Amino acid sequence: MKLRELGELGLIERLKGFEGKGLLAAIGEDAAVLDLDGERLLFTADLLVEGVHFRREYTPFESLGQKAVAVNLSDLAACGAVPLIYTVSLVVSPEEEWSSVEELYRGMVRGGGQYGAQLAGGDISKGETLTISIALLGRAPDGKVVLRRGAEEGDLLYVSGWLGEAAMGLRLLEAGQRVGRLVRRHLLPEPRVELGRELAKRGLATAMIDLSDGFLRDLGHLLRSSGKGAMVDLDRFPLSDDLLEVAHSMGLDPLEIALTGGEDYELLFAVNPSRKEEVEALGRELEVKLSQVGWITAEGLDLRKGGSPYHPCGPPGFDHLR
Amino acid sequence: MKLRELGELGLIERLKGFEGKGLLAAIGEDAAVLDLDGERLLFTADLLVEGVHFRREYTPFESLGQKAVAVNLSDLAACGAVPLIYTVSLVVSPEEEWSSVEELYRGMVRGGGQYGAQLAGGDISKGETLTISIALLGRAPDGKVVLRRGAEEGDLLYVSGWLGEAAMGLRLLEAGQRVGRLVRRHLLPEPRVELGRELAKRGLATAMIDLSDGFLRDLGHLLRSSGKGAMVDLDRFPLSDDLLEVAHSMGLDPLEIALTGGEDYELLFAVNPSRKEEVEALGRELEVKLSQVGWITAEGLDLRKGGSPYHPCGPPGFDHLR
Repeated sequence: MKLRELGELGLIERLKGFEGKGLLAAIGEDAAVLDLDGERLLFTADLLVEGVHFRREYTPFESLGQKAVAVNLSDLAACGAVPLIYTVSLVVSPEEEWSSVEELYRGMVRGGGQYGAQLAGGDISKGETLTISIALLGRAPDGKVVLRRGAEEGDLLYVSGWLGEAAMGLRLLEAGQRVGRLVRRHLLPEPRVELGRELAKRGLATAMIDLSDGFLRDLGHLLRSSGKGAMVDLDRFPLSDDLLEVAHSMGLDPLEIALTGGEDYELLFAVNPSRKEEVEALGRELEVKLSQVGWITAEGLDLRKGGSPYHPCGPPGFDHLR
Repeated sequence: MKLRELGELGLIERLKGFEGKGLLAAIGEDAAVLDLDGERLLFTADLLVEGVHFRREYTPFESLGQKAVAVNLSDLAACGAVPLIYTVSLVVSPEEEWSSVEELYRGMVRGGGQYGAQLAGGDISKGETLTISIALLGRAPDGKVVLRRGAEEGDLLYVSGWLGEAAMGLRLLEAGQRVGRLVRRHLLPEPRVELGRELAKRGLATAMIDLSDGFLRDLGHLLRSSGKGAMVDLDRFPLSDDLLEVAHSMGLDPLEIALTGGEDYELLFAVNPSRKEEVEALGRELEVKLSQVGWITAEGLDLRKGGSPYHPCGPPGFDHLR
């Protein structure tokens, strides 16, 4: 069977058979978790491949570097960990200018430095397709981590920030626009490191994932890992005025974009109803918008809009093998 | 300036400006070293890119997977660390068969498992060029590590194993041969994890590096990091009967191959003369051939053969950007 037929999820499912048995979590989580004599270490890796994850014509190298680190930071944020060090393995053409590579690393160091992540080496090889492979090590200082599994029936479902903006920004870039808030949301995602850490530290989230592949697809990951279902009330969905305005001007459905567009790098998490006030207080404290968009059910996925069932039109998100 | 003009070493030199300041070692070492509340962690990453590091026509996927992990294990071995967990980021065509990918991971798990390294996740993306990017985390249980820097004038220079065999094996593969000891030495390098760890634990090596780019080039790295020179007595060079026989049958100079051929994944290390007996006892204990091939000098690199200066013909080793 070809990988195209298997798809990304099918492949990940099969690869689980190869994961180490001495880990608290590994394949199928945002990061692997290792307990090392009481020190809880988290380890994650993400690739950016030219033509798949980015296009050179509208991606300045400095923002590309910053984003390459940010997507890894977001994985640690989803586990409630703080970053330590990262390696960068780079496949690059020998014809590339040093000045471009310098911008790339300047972006990585800026993106990591904001959150205390330090560049610790890596590898370099020539190759036709620019590929940035980052592995990031982090820790949970108090040992508290949150995984995708752990959501319980009745838990409230929250998302941070405004959804769909990065996907809308990508469409603007594809249409030739180079500036503006939505374009920046695509080029320079801000990982929710502090929010993730506080949710873990205060024991507020029962399950958590970052939104990289699209809300519906990532919710599916969380539900599958937790063995649960969800009811999502789309009337509560956080759609910004910017998104609504641009989507309408381009004749697009903003809700569809928010449901299936990837790369928001916001956090989606489940919370026991008894902790509702604390979570909302945390949002105010960190000045992060938190929206309760639904709750966990025993099984299945119900989307409701205006009280009626809602059926999304497109595929639920991005498959990196199709 | 283009990367081709800068070369791999020139690029690495410039990238040092971006490394984190809170690390005990980082860019330009075999692995980065982080002290985390007294726990000494080591972090390394290596790429294998199709067409640069391997050719599909003579590389079975299971041995490719095993080698991809082995080259990372070798970096930790060169620091005297033991491996813990690794991530695998894979760029692969959607047209690839699952059975090939399964073989690849089976090889990785076999290669890592022998030394206690566990697969902890990673990332996958479609792409034209098969690329395996591994990042490996390890530790020095007693805090003792060895770096490339640290060699002192008068230290003895040792290498483990037989040199040039992997490079000779590659030539045999290119000539159509698919079996035999030299071919296996290229396809399935054995990282010197135990030797590296014991050298660090017993405080025997003052500086160490693994031989991946070729003896002369890697010796150059060690000398540059240590700010020293070396005298190498080529009459003491460990050339196996297999290497001599095949090189002569192909009309090649075995010494040249041993000096410049890469991927032996043996260890090259410096030892204070007062510890000579202990090092040689360790070699006997672990049943690893150790050859004293020279000593550290104040500066420069002198190669001697039959008492006369020796000048190698080719470039000193492999540059991954040229």
